Amino acid sequence: MTICVTGHSNPDTDSVTSAIAYAALLNAQGQEAKACMQIAVDKLNPESTTVLKRFGLKAPETMMDVAGMKVALVDFSDIGQAPANIASAEVVAIVDHHKIGDITTNQPILFRAEPVGCTGTVLNKMFKDAGVAIPKDIAGGMLAAILSDTVNFKSPTCTPDDKAAVAELKKVAGVEDTESLFMDMLRAKSSIDGISMKDLVFRDYKDFDMNGKKMGIGQLELAAIDQVAAIRADLVKALQEVKNEGRHSVLFMLTDVVKEGTELLVISDEPALIEAAYGGKIENGCMWVPGMMSRKKQTVPPLQKACGC
Amino acid sequence: MTICVTGHSNPDTDSVTSAIAYAALLNAQGQEAKACMQIAVDKLNPESTTVLKRFGLKAPETMMDVAGMKVALVDFSDIGQAPANIASAEVVAIVDHHKIGDITTNQPILFRAEPVGCTGTVLNKMFKDAGVAIPKDIAGGMLAAILSDTVNFKSPTCTPDDKAAVAELKKVAGVEDTESLFMDMLRAKSSIDGISMKDLVFRDYKDFDMNGKKMGIGQLELAAIDQVAAIRADLVKALQEVKNEGRHSVLFMLTDVVKEGTELLVISDEPALIEAAYGGKIENGCMWVPGMMSRKKQTVPPLQKACGC
Repeated sequence: MTICVTGHSNPDTDSVTSAIAYAALLNAQGQEAKACMQIAVDKLNPESTTVLKRFGLKAPETMMDVAGMKVALVDFSDIGQAPANIASAEVVAIVDHHKIGDITTNQPILFRAEPVGCTGTVLNKMFKDAGVAIPKDIAGGMLAAILSDTVNFKSPTCTPDDKAAVAELKKVAGVEDTESLFMDMLRAKSSIDGISMKDLVFRDYKDFDMNGKKMGIGQLELAAIDQVAAIRADLVKALQEVKNEGRHSVLFMLTDVVKEGTELLVISDEPALIEAAYGGKIENGCMWVPGMMSRKKQTVPPLQKACGC
Repeated sequence: MTICVTGHSNPDTDSVTSAIAYAALLNAQGQEAKACMQIAVDKLNPESTTVLKRFGLKAPETMMDVAGMKVALVDFSDIGQAPANIASAEVVAIVDHHKIGDITTNQPILFRAEPVGCTGTVLNKMFKDAGVAIPKDIAGGMLAAILSDTVNFKSPTCTPDDKAAVAELKKVAGVEDTESLFMDMLRAKSSIDGISMKDLVFRDYKDFDMNGKKMGIGQLELAAIDQVAAIRADLVKALQEVKNEGRHSVLFMLTDVVKEGTELLVISDEPALIEAAYGGKIENGCMWVPGMMSRKKQTVPPLQKACGC
């Protein structure tokens, strides 16, 4: 049975390119596997679309339900971020760089997670360990994913391993100027032209269960916060609607990649809990958190702690 | 804070030597770490005791409670097999070769599990990846663990990676004859002289929660089943006592390493469930299961399936 290799729901560039890369590695190792993603091709975020186009990569197949299938997970290990009916699927491998989630198995499998900035960095090691050469187009996708996840090496999640992987992958991909690749990606990512507010909210969004409290956290990386000035009121309205769907809180990170900090939009049943988590004051529904760049490393853990997880 | 590196409860040779090996690797990488184990030194099983003595290794420190500590887990990823108060400890790494358990974390960590026969095989790769030479005594321990876990390569859990690791480690450890090392270990392991029945039952024993049913599975590897003939009645009595402590079933595997099969002693609330799991008939409280060598690969999965996990 063909293994469906898929990233998390609302896939980002790492989830998309890691699915492509790991499927290729499995194929090279003699296993039937195909890259999949939990989104329709035309809903893919603008950054990922730009990256796929730039390197001539085919978008993974849309796969929302994996009932009865064999699946390999990349870039996540949480049931909540998996396709529908993951419980009836056979998880055969996991490659990730996030906290360890709640997927369990009945059989021993490959589970390789490392505390690095990007799943692409882990996959680069796995190709080397397996003695398999990375195809040029796929190396470009992995390279772009690392630049995206580490915010061009500025995120606190970035490690020396990520930088080493970029140095190797840029040669394979034939990319000389990673700065300009990153700026192209940032321009695509922060473009808000003609996008609906709901699409903007869910472009890079995850739900978390924190001790019974449903928390939604979205992020938009910007070259400057005032890029969203004109649509700010509409954005808050859209967030309020998401909040009203039974969530305890919705946080939306407007991350200034140049200033290296985040304006956190907060809609919550317990604003004091959010203030305690980040040690700041919410004013007019938002708080500036200096240095906050990474949802995974800087937004989720303090909130989990504040919730007593 | 020093990282406590520990294997599972009721540690086997792999849990003990992997704790020693991974602590040494962490030390070589500049991290404070010490080998620990969830048992008193004088309760360590005879095989592990023999191995430690043979290679001049110091037994890990006894550590039954890890409240507030930093811990690295080797050879397991199940909360049920962890030291007391694992929930208040910070799990910083996991290296394993079993099914993926229910440990989760709030931060990204190293989680490296592979579907190979022994954690020692995974650790051998990790030493190589890190460019750290394995000390001679530790290589001996890792070698012994692989021979033990793979039953001298006869277990279905054994993979080419395990054989490759043994070929490398025997050189480092200066062991020419792995057959005789294995037979020494088997003699120690299957020795039942002077051991209490309870100690025999728990020497290599694990509890599992299967859909709400508490299942205990112990194993004793023997050169021939009749080694236990004289104590069989006492053994069954001890198993009945373990069963009476609130378990749904207690299975005890008398594994004949030469004939390559297991006589399964069964005490259960639902004997028909056990029969269905292994496709055999229980007669006089036991059933012969040809080919059954591995609890992890051949005893646990069919039972989980029968329980609807």
